[in-house]
Amino acid sequence: MAKIIECVPNISEGRNLEVVEACVDEVRKTAGVTLLDYSSDASHNRSVITFMGSPEGVMNAATALAKKAVELIDLTKHQGEHPRMGAIDVCPLIPLKDCTKEETVEYSKQLGERLFNEAGIPIFLYEDSASAPHRVNLADIRKGQFEGMAEKVQDPKWTPDFGGAAIHPTAGVTAVGCRMPLVAFNINLSTDDVEVAKAIAKVIRRRNGGFDCVKSNGFLIETEAQDGKPAKRYAQVSINMTDYTRTPLYRVVEVTKAEAKRWGVHVVGTEIIGLTPMRALVDSAEYYLQIVDFDADKQIIENYLL
Amino acid sequence: MAKIIECVPNISEGRNLEVVEACVDEVRKTAGVTLLDYSSDASHNRSVITFMGSPEGVMNAATALAKKAVELIDLTKHQGEHPRMGAIDVCPLIPLKDCTKEETVEYSKQLGERLFNEAGIPIFLYEDSASAPHRVNLADIRKGQFEGMAEKVQDPKWTPDFGGAAIHPTAGVTAVGCRMPLVAFNINLSTDDVEVAKAIAKVIRRRNGGFDCVKSNGFLIETEAQDGKPAKRYAQVSINMTDYTRTPLYRVVEVTKAEAKRWGVHVVGTEIIGLTPMRALVDSAEYYLQIVDFDADKQIIENYLL
Repeated sequence: MAKIIECVPNISEGRNLEVVEACVDEVRKTAGVTLLDYSSDASHNRSVITFMGSPEGVMNAATALAKKAVELIDLTKHQGEHPRMGAIDVCPLIPLKDCTKEETVEYSKQLGERLFNEAGIPIFLYEDSASAPHRVNLADIRKGQFEGMAEKVQDPKWTPDFGGAAIHPTAGVTAVGCRMPLVAFNINLSTDDVEVAKAIAKVIRRRNGGFDCVKSNGFLIETEAQDGKPAKRYAQVSINMTDYTRTPLYRVVEVTKAEAKRWGVHVVGTEIIGLTPMRALVDSAEYYLQIVDFDADKQIIENYLL
Repeated sequence: MAKIIECVPNISEGRNLEVVEACVDEVRKTAGVTLLDYSSDASHNRSVITFMGSPEGVMNAATALAKKAVELIDLTKHQGEHPRMGAIDVCPLIPLKDCTKEETVEYSKQLGERLFNEAGIPIFLYEDSASAPHRVNLADIRKGQFEGMAEKVQDPKWTPDFGGAAIHPTAGVTAVGCRMPLVAFNINLSTDDVEVAKAIAKVIRRRNGGFDCVKSNGFLIETEAQDGKPAKRYAQVSINMTDYTRTPLYRVVEVTKAEAKRWGVHVVGTEIIGLTPMRALVDSAEYYLQIVDFDADKQIIENYLL
C-alpha cells in the first residue's frame, strides 16, 4: 500500500480567478496527485487548494504551484481581510495513509528546501515541523504580516528555516509543516442557551484543561424558515479536532453528553463539516460496537484499493 | 469514481496446490483486478479465491480462471467433505463501490453467459440474480451434487439459466450471482452459558422472526491457556450479516444488549472476522455519534482515492 499525503496550500489571491486557475492548473498537470477541492474568498482575497497523492507527487505539485504563485501574485499590492505573509501563505502537509507523522515532517523539510531553492521563497517550518516551540503556531510566525516581515526576520528568533534573514520582495515568506488531518465537528444541543455551549466548549478544549487535541467554542445557531423547513435556534459546540488519532471523536461526544446533563440538556445531533479521514469514524465504531482485535488496515476492504 | 466489484470463486481443488496456483495466476495476469486473498482446505478439497476490481476486469479474470479450472479439475475424480457441483463451484459477484445491486445482477448475467460460451460450463443464476425463488439458495441448487446433476438438470425446474439441460462432463455446473458483502461478526457474552447465546441468536435472526439480513447461532468458545494468556470460556453469538446496508451492525448489537439483560448478561466484546466494507463501520459511527446530514461518498477522504 502506497503512502498518501494531503497538501492544502493557501494562496493570497481570491479575486482574480484567472490567477487562481493558473495556480490550480499546476496541480492538475502534476502526475501522481488528485485535486480534491479549491475555493476562493474575495473578502479574504485568498484561496484554499486541497490535493493529495504520493509524497513525491505532492511535493512536485506544491513546488510548481509555488513557482506560479510567485510569478503571478504581488504581495506589495495585496489587500484582504485575512492576515497573510506570502504569495503562498501557508502549505501544510498531512499524513493520510501508510505515512507516519515523522515521515511527513521529513517531507515538509524537503519541500521547504525545494520551495526556497526553486521558487526563491524563504520558509518557516511550523506545527509538527517547527524548529522551536515559539515557531509552532502559524499566527505567531505570521504576526506583523507581509508588511512587517522584512524587519521581523532580522530578529534571530525569527530567521526563516530556509533562505536566511530575508524575504522574497513580492512573495514574502511561506510556512511549511506537517499537521494531522483536522476534523471540523459540531455538536448541537437541545437548548438555545449559548452559555451552555460555551461552558461545554471550555470543558473539552485543551486551553482550559480539556482534551489535548480539541479547539472549541460555543455558538448560537439561528436559521430562518426555508423550503418548508421551520426556523431553528439552538446552541452549538463547534470543535476542531486537531488530531483524531490522539483525541477520538467518541470521547469528546461522551464527555459532552456527560457535561450537558448538568443543565438538563442533551445532544440532538452532530455534524462533520467537509472532509474526514475514514479512520476518525472507524475508531468510534470500534469503541461503540466494542470490537476487539480489529486491524483496520488489513480488515477494511477499501484499504486494498488505496 | 470508478465502479468496484468483488468476486469470490470457490474451486473444487484444495490438495494439489499447483492446480490452485495455476488458477490464481489467471487472476494475477488480468489487468484491472487486485488479488486480495486465496486459501485452500485439504479436507474440503476446495479453495476460495478473493479478488476485486472494475466490473470488466473482474469478469475477464473470472472467465480466465474458469477456463483454467475446467482444464485442470476433473470432478469425476474429486473427493472432499464440502458439497460441490462444479470445477468452479460457485462464483459470487459483490458490489463494493459506486455499483448498485441491480447493476451487479446485470454483470452476473453477463458473466454467466460468458462462462458458458467461453468455458463451456452450464450456469445457474443464484442469490439476487436467481430466475425463480426456488433457485435463490445455493444449497438448494447444489443438492444432489456433481454426481446427481446430470439427472437433476433434466427436471424443467432445474434447467440451468445458460447452457440448457446439460452439465459439463468433467466440470459440472457453476452457480453465478450477485450477493451483498457478508460481514462475519461475533458478539461475546459475560457468561459461559451457551443457552443464553443460542437464545439471543434466535431472537436476532430472520429464521425466527428477527432481522431480515441476520443468520446467527450460539456457541461455547473455549480457549486454552497460551503465551501467558489465561484459558477462556464464554458464550458467543456468531453472526453472518448478509446485507449490512439493510440490517446495520449497531442495531444487532443494541438488540443483543437489550436481550442479554434478561439473563443479567452483558456484551464483553465483539469481533469482525476477515474483511468488512468501510461502510459497515461508518454507518455505526454515524448512529452512535448522532451525525446528521453526512454524505460518506463525498466527505470521507479515502473515497477520492478509490
